[in-house]
Amino acid sequence: MTDLTKHIRTIPNFPKQGILFYDITPLIQHPDAFKETIRQLTDTVKEWGRFDYIAAPEARGFVFAAPLALEFGAGLVPIRKPGKLPHSTVSKSYDLEYGSNTIQVHTDAVAPGNKVLLLDDLLATGGTMEACRQLIEEIGGEVVGAVFVMELLGLGGRETIKTPHIKTLMQFE
Amino acid sequence: MTDLTKHIRTIPNFPKQGILFYDITPLIQHPDAFKETIRQLTDTVKEWGRFDYIAAPEARGFVFAAPLALEFGAGLVPIRKPGKLPHSTVSKSYDLEYGSNTIQVHTDAVAPGNKVLLLDDLLATGGTMEACRQLIEEIGGEVVGAVFVMELLGLGGRETIKTPHIKTLMQFE
Repeated sequence: MTDLTKHIRTIPNFPKQGILFYDITPLIQHPDAFKETIRQLTDTVKEWGRFDYIAAPEARGFVFAAPLALEFGAGLVPIRKPGKLPHSTVSKSYDLEYGSNTIQVHTDAVAPGNKVLLLDDLLATGGTMEACRQLIEEIGGEVVGAVFVMELLGLGGRETIKTPHIKTLMQFE
Repeated sequence: MTDLTKHIRTIPNFPKQGILFYDITPLIQHPDAFKETIRQLTDTVKEWGRFDYIAAPEARGFVFAAPLALEFGAGLVPIRKPGKLPHSTVSKSYDLEYGSNTIQVHTDAVAPGNKVLLLDDLLATGGTMEACRQLIEEIGGEVVGAVFVMELLGLGGRETIKTPHIKTLMQFE
């Protein structure tokens, strides 16, 4: 597989002191690297069986979920911060290192029994993705797995997320 | 052209009283409609000459800009709210009906002389897109045009945006 890590830029102390941020903007601004990322995501999830939808949290998740949904002929289900989805929603709150976060999905986004792939750009603690999983199951979806572009090792993300499969394209210490 | 308007849902009084919101989630959740939207966007902009990048404001803009960038072999430049882009940025503030909004782009997102297509889901007053245009020109890009999935007529959006081309797939009164 082509090495994508050279297209990831690290930014010290963002968004706050002591955090090393992994910036995907060089990757998505590079047409061949962006295309290769979608190819690798496709290869990674095609073994998990068919799915009807890809659900992804805003905003960076949309960047990879939209092309992958088209690639598989699946629908795209946006998971968003409160106040963004206009129809009837269900919400899930989860703890962050400091404080908490809330995300929402439309109650009619999937039909009961629909199979759903979860996708985000980064697996860190796994809190956001586990909340996504719970939301999708609450509206009747069956989650087939979770896929990420990047993974920060040592934060317990894989233990937090209760999906049949978890895969990541790039891992960082 | 296939009619996409049946996949748009209207929600009265969202996000506030008196506003009729045009909801694209049924469209992107429908695989054939989503694919057809990307096909129509492709057809629409291919007459405008080549471009190196597609720049789009978060978050719904990413949903359409990402597949279209891959389709054309272009890079994707995210335009985001303050505090989201980790590297050096330039900012632009613009007036909303009440209050104002600020968006940012990375200063190194494009190289001087690069050609850039602008994309968003909805053309209303045009304020966001005109701010995007100014940001891209400020970092040296040449804007080839602006394309939208939907347009709300009668709000003066087309007069506000100073790009060589403006096209929209669906128009609503």
